[in-house]
Amino acid sequence: MLFVVLLSFYFNLCIAKASLNDVLFTGEYEFFDLTHPFDNNTVYWPDAEKFIFSKKIEGFTLDDKSWYASYDFTAGEHGGTHIDAPYHFSSTGKRVGEITLDRLIVPLIVVDVSSIVNGDPSFVLYKHHLDHLLNDNLGKHCVIIFKFGWSKYFNETKQYLGLTEAQDTLNFPGLSEEIAEWIKSSYKNVVGVGVDVASVDPGSSTDFPAHKILLHEGLYIIENVNINSNIPDYGCTALALPMKIAMGTGAPLRLVAICPK
Amino acid sequence: MLFVVLLSFYFNLCIAKASLNDVLFTGEYEFFDLTHPFDNNTVYWPDAEKFIFSKKIEGFTLDDKSWYASYDFTAGEHGGTHIDAPYHFSSTGKRVGEITLDRLIVPLIVVDVSSIVNGDPSFVLYKHHLDHLLNDNLGKHCVIIFKFGWSKYFNETKQYLGLTEAQDTLNFPGLSEEIAEWIKSSYKNVVGVGVDVASVDPGSSTDFPAHKILLHEGLYIIENVNINSNIPDYGCTALALPMKIAMGTGAPLRLVAICPK
Repeated sequence: MLFVVLLSFYFNLCIAKASLNDVLFTGEYEFFDLTHPFDNNTVYWPDAEKFIFSKKIEGFTLDDKSWYASYDFTAGEHGGTHIDAPYHFSSTGKRVGEITLDRLIVPLIVVDVSSIVNGDPSFVLYKHHLDHLLNDNLGKHCVIIFKFGWSKYFNETKQYLGLTEAQDTLNFPGLSEEIAEWIKSSYKNVVGVGVDVASVDPGSSTDFPAHKILLHEGLYIIENVNINSNIPDYGCTALALPMKIAMGTGAPLRLVAICPK
Repeated sequence: MLFVVLLSFYFNLCIAKASLNDVLFTGEYEFFDLTHPFDNNTVYWPDAEKFIFSKKIEGFTLDDKSWYASYDFTAGEHGGTHIDAPYHFSSTGKRVGEITLDRLIVPLIVVDVSSIVNGDPSFVLYKHHLDHLLNDNLGKHCVIIFKFGWSKYFNETKQYLGLTEAQDTLNFPGLSEEIAEWIKSSYKNVVGVGVDVASVDPGSSTDFPAHKILLHEGLYIIENVNINSNIPDYGCTALALPMKIAMGTGAPLRLVAICPK
């Protein structure tokens, strides 16, 4: 009995400390998985190492004839829903394992330009499209995800990437150099930029200015965000948790949004 | 001006919806990364595929002589800080991609038995060690992490696994079959069980009863938790976000605890 009383006292102490659990699991929040699955269809850059299971043990093979299954896998860092660390384009930039949690768990701002893009794979986003980016999260860390409306093509790699038969050119929407410069100069609180296409730079880019500007500035980039669902522009929280590849130039990312219902 | 007013109105609407951001980023919470990094030292089972960078492009190789770096990698699913999906030991169990977010973002209970273990690699945890497990999170989903005090050996693989010279036997602490049965029968709200060692079963186990009991019951397992820091037993929230390997029997996991300061 004394034990139960002590336990109850201890538990109440914990509640007094305002556990996040008392807020998060009251039914007022919804979790959105903004991550494409890794499988044989996962989109990678045409010349990159794709995700493959490289070995497979599977069957009723244990001593007591019960089930056991285990795979190995091979993958490039920069396919599917993934993060680019600054080191990807900056020799002095941080690697994946060096990006701190206070930059990975942050308010999320969604900029939905899908109705302006309207399925045009040659669309490039400029400042004049975006007067509503004025709200800069009041100076606190945040990540911005640009929604071009491209996630729905993810399972059709050729359409998603805008691949020609020869596989030598790509064509999908992206950010202009102007937008990257604007974020760099005017939105110092933005720690990461995400897109629902295979690259922040448009598919036709060959010199990758948005990559260079953002990664040189120390921001991270998220590519192939899976954002088919309608989530609010403001008010969600991003959990952008990459596989912790210590020296990674990038890594598979589990991206979740926690939004008020 | 009208635009700014409208924007302000819209932003206030969002706040009225009780964004988690208004709670989470007030300075009252601390983030703990309970994940070991993936690199050449990451602990894998002796016969498993280790984490390796399998290709490397790195240098000032772009057209404008600026930096570009990108790696591929190979890994087993079940090394480093990782999740075991029920399918690992149950042919009808869920795979990694099927575990829903409401089981991965849950209250965290830490059961710190490190002072009882006291560095003994042959230690096996039984019910009589654990009368304080009585608090079962009031019937809501939660994950329990057992802290044996083993994370500090992670960078010394031989000591961490209790490897002999012949590498044919292992010796590290783990859960008894009794504990796994107890969780299964008495704690229906527990959706996952984690340990700061390489397996929920003791290193010396050859028939893996804790794996079988927990995974057959539909729980997931987390192994190689990195828990050197002192975090509270109750009141933290676990973000257990695996690489979304659709058909995975397991996957690298980014494990974070959000705790009241």
